[in-house]
Amino acid sequence: MGSTDLCVGVYLLKRLKDAGVDHIFGVPGDFVLGFFNQILQSDIKFVGTCNELNAAYAADGYARVKGIGCLSTTYCVGELSAINGVAGAWAEDLPIVKITGAPATHHYSRKTMLHHTLGDYHIPQRMFEKITVAHTVLMNEETAAAEIDRVLSACLTRKKPVYIALPADVIKKPIKQTYIPYTIPPLQKSDPTAVQEAVVESLTILQRSKKPILLPGIEICRYGLRDKFRTLLEKSGFPYSTMMLAKTVLDEDHPQFIGLYQGAKSRPYVKDRVEKSDCIIVFGEKMTDFNTGGFTASLNEFVTINASVNEVQISHHVYPDVYLWDYMDALTMHLVTRDAKDLDIHPASLGCTHTRATKFEPKPDKEIRMGRFFDRMSSFLPEGTIVIAETGASLFSAAETLMPKGGRFVGQTFYGSIGYTVGATLGLALAAPDKTVVLFIGDGSFQVTVQDVSTMLRYGCKNVIIFLVNNDGYTIERVIVDHAYNDIQPWKYYKLCEVFGGGFAADCWTEGQLEDALAKTKTANDLCFIEVHMPRWDCSDSLRAAGEAMAKNNSLLEPGGVGPLKPPEGAEL
Amino acid sequence: MGSTDLCVGVYLLKRLKDAGVDHIFGVPGDFVLGFFNQILQSDIKFVGTCNELNAAYAADGYARVKGIGCLSTTYCVGELSAINGVAGAWAEDLPIVKITGAPATHHYSRKTMLHHTLGDYHIPQRMFEKITVAHTVLMNEETAAAEIDRVLSACLTRKKPVYIALPADVIKKPIKQTYIPYTIPPLQKSDPTAVQEAVVESLTILQRSKKPILLPGIEICRYGLRDKFRTLLEKSGFPYSTMMLAKTVLDEDHPQFIGLYQGAKSRPYVKDRVEKSDCIIVFGEKMTDFNTGGFTASLNEFVTINASVNEVQISHHVYPDVYLWDYMDALTMHLVTRDAKDLDIHPASLGCTHTRATKFEPKPDKEIRMGRFFDRMSSFLPEGTIVIAETGASLFSAAETLMPKGGRFVGQTFYGSIGYTVGATLGLALAAPDKTVVLFIGDGSFQVTVQDVSTMLRYGCKNVIIFLVNNDGYTIERVIVDHAYNDIQPWKYYKLCEVFGGGFAADCWTEGQLEDALAKTKTANDLCFIEVHMPRWDCSDSLRAAGEAMAKNNSLLEPGGVGPLKPPEGAEL
Repeated sequence: MGSTDLCVGVYLLKRLKDAGVDHIFGVPGDFVLGFFNQILQSDIKFVGTCNELNAAYAADGYARVKGIGCLSTTYCVGELSAINGVAGAWAEDLPIVKITGAPATHHYSRKTMLHHTLGDYHIPQRMFEKITVAHTVLMNEETAAAEIDRVLSACLTRKKPVYIALPADVIKKPIKQTYIPYTIPPLQKSDPTAVQEAVVESLTILQRSKKPILLPGIEICRYGLRDKFRTLLEKSGFPYSTMMLAKTVLDEDHPQFIGLYQGAKSRPYVKDRVEKSDCIIVFGEKMTDFNTGGFTASLNEFVTINASVNEVQISHHVYPDVYLWDYMDALTMHLVTRDAKDLDIHPASLGCTHTRATKFEPKPDKEIRMGRFFDRMSSFLPEGTIVIAETGASLFSAAETLMPKGGRFVGQTFYGSIGYTVGATLGLALAAPDKTVVLFIGDGSFQVTVQDVSTMLRYGCKNVIIFLVNNDGYTIERVIVDHAYNDIQPWKYYKLCEVFGGGFAADCWTEGQLEDALAKTKTANDLCFIEVHMPRWDCSDSLRAAGEAMAKNNSLLEPGGVGPLKPPEGAEL
Repeated sequence: MGSTDLCVGVYLLKRLKDAGVDHIFGVPGDFVLGFFNQILQSDIKFVGTCNELNAAYAADGYARVKGIGCLSTTYCVGELSAINGVAGAWAEDLPIVKITGAPATHHYSRKTMLHHTLGDYHIPQRMFEKITVAHTVLMNEETAAAEIDRVLSACLTRKKPVYIALPADVIKKPIKQTYIPYTIPPLQKSDPTAVQEAVVESLTILQRSKKPILLPGIEICRYGLRDKFRTLLEKSGFPYSTMMLAKTVLDEDHPQFIGLYQGAKSRPYVKDRVEKSDCIIVFGEKMTDFNTGGFTASLNEFVTINASVNEVQISHHVYPDVYLWDYMDALTMHLVTRDAKDLDIHPASLGCTHTRATKFEPKPDKEIRMGRFFDRMSSFLPEGTIVIAETGASLFSAAETLMPKGGRFVGQTFYGSIGYTVGATLGLALAAPDKTVVLFIGDGSFQVTVQDVSTMLRYGCKNVIIFLVNNDGYTIERVIVDHAYNDIQPWKYYKLCEVFGGGFAADCWTEGQLEDALAKTKTANDLCFIEVHMPRWDCSDSLRAAGEAMAKNNSLLEPGGVGPLKPPEGAEL
């Protein structure tokens, strides 16, 4: 398309394409149709979701693979339905672009009583400004290109959502400039002398250390620093552990990976190896409650080096403006390699909770239990699988499962909005069409956002396997307090494929039925939907511990009152 | 419960009960479980919905019958998922109370990295303040009672949503006062001399008028002024018309009711009778685009008296502080009754688009068409039915259908958020268990919020009949521009009853099948779900006109471009 055709909407689409967007998720509405018409004529594909919240979740999932995601909806009714999904991306550092098709500019000053409006036309922007690093309503074509570039660069630099509203009259207005392709902004540069000082101090600590350990965090994933971390790790020879947020930062069969650290809920070896270390280097991790086993993580602050995206903290002092990537490069350069045998390294691949190292023997008539189910999954999951686990029983068990070679683990581990994973699975499946995407989700969460399974069918996402864990309600709430508000309507979930018009469905009550269904996924050549029944009390110890922590935090422990749901006496787990 | 048991959460529940709340809609989450525990012990019933957006829509529907509605969710993830539903209640003047279970107060200052949080703990409140007339986070028990009363009174006085957040540590703290039952705030009082002056001027205009007409609006419904309006109307002898928002302000078989006024889209007689009137008295109506036939309403401003909730405007001057109820009372008192035969009144019951006055003869093998379908509905709908119509093809046709005696018409006619009616139907069904609630909804909208049909089944809403109009996508968007983004995945909707576990389902392609299904609804004694297939191009002329207006407003008319979807040549409508 020549520069003569360049108008505001087309400019935005070209920018998005240059930044890596190949799909835009959204729902139509009259104010956004002009922009949608432009999408149809662009080389970006429009993906219509059933509702806007799922479009936001899809954009979030997509961004986890592609480094950017995008959703577009109509004004107000559409964007406010999506806002919780954008808030999740804000919490979890996902760069997504929310594009709103808005009423024409003259309505903003006249406050015309158009459908979908609230009086003050700026209300949606005022809401989105709380959860975006940049936001704009493009009120004229003169500044539109500069505004788009400003907002998009903030998104990519700071790995957070941004908001762009396109009034219906502005999108077709011409931009009077020749199009120059977009360059993704480079990583920021540190103060080199500060980097040097931080690294010298780090090396001094490391020199004294007998049992150093590395804790790579979520910022390694978000800022594209996996290769840098691998180089540092392998030069060092040190072991590393991850918390939930950064699970699968590297392949989990890496010989230096010792497994999941989650404070008091960790396996004893991992807990000791981390907490008794005499030098812990943390690379950009968030110390959230779910990530730290309910704040039971106990890192000795006197021996902890906390390198985050824009500063390094050692013990109780801070080096500002030392960026993570520069620190890692400099540290790698000066590290002295240690011999693994001196470092007490027990690889996770041999010792974690659910690992393929232990051969699984199915018992055909046995009811399915959470623990054995994930034991089975550890060998079922094909190489390169993207595993996505819904907040709740699924997340806590999947996190303790060894991921296959080349696999990725996705969860909304900090924000924890239930229902997130249905939309996110759609986004992942389209972002990585050559990978298998396996979703683990409980029935309560599934009911929140169920409809967009149909969108996976519509767009031919044959690379998706959904395990619907039907345990009769909100188990994550039952382990806090087991009251009737945690009940839900019992659906026949596997019949949804008939409603939605596609997919291979199975309904499994026993290990034998599960084996049969797993075998059929290999030849199904379609989305697979496997309903797996488990008792309502069945979940991992780590979820029970999280339930206890939440009960305490919310003052829900009542003497003689209704407590958490526990397994019946003598129950086989 | 004695005053000694009075704590913050219990106080709030007693206030809500006094104000008319018998059901609270919501979804659990750890921060709100303490409040949910208190609900279970109160005389208010908890209704668990599948997701939070539907809880908000349910509270909105409920408030349309009961004069107040309430939803409660967990912090941030829950409340932000509901925010669009609360925004709709803001636009349409529904008093709903949004109650959030929030993290304990000390987390607000410490910004603890708990799940569901965004850094600044006040972000959700800052968003809700834009769409509520009062909002509070109850940070201590000393002021909690006064804060609850302030916020609740604003809700009931101004008929708009309010927001209350309950930190988990505050809800159980004692309120040291004896409980005095809540009194709903009385209507505000006008300046009596201003009322007198406004009425004298109005009477002068009326005296000269040969063809006066009344246009009662939405504020009559919201402020409980239906009886006052009936008294005024019947004393006057004048005809009246309504716009969409105030449809069924009184029974539509009223001999003075002439039908729906929607500007240029009105029936010719109604258009003339309104627009050529020499005195139009409007009582509290919103002149929104959908309400005015796309701003084609043409009321002669020199002869229009515009009485709204807090002022009366006559021609170009305003009487401030003259409240609608006082103006109506005073006008009624001084009105001179006219004889109907001098006033050119053609009752709607004989002349509107879809009326039972014309006997419907089903043609068993004929495909179902929108026009004949609503002809059929006008006689099918039982007396006292609450009809709810989703924004789109359903709304525009249902609005032109005569409602049965004692019936009510509900639509989100101003805000127009698609999917609204599923949640709202749940709210209506529980608010009016002795009424039949009939929902008309298109397939595109239905996919947005489908899951809470299961909640109707869960709570035994046997008084619900759902007509799912399957016309293969977003017809309301197709009549603007007919592009591929208006397509959706074709579901077998009627099979949802099997998934959700209940209800009588039917799948109708012909008028004969429809007759059969209608007959079965009489004996089903269960929720009825009737899928009705119609061609994608089939809709009312008024929807086509709305589509044209939206295309123009959003600059979507392109010479030679893709235009709106039109009926095929020779198609029988």
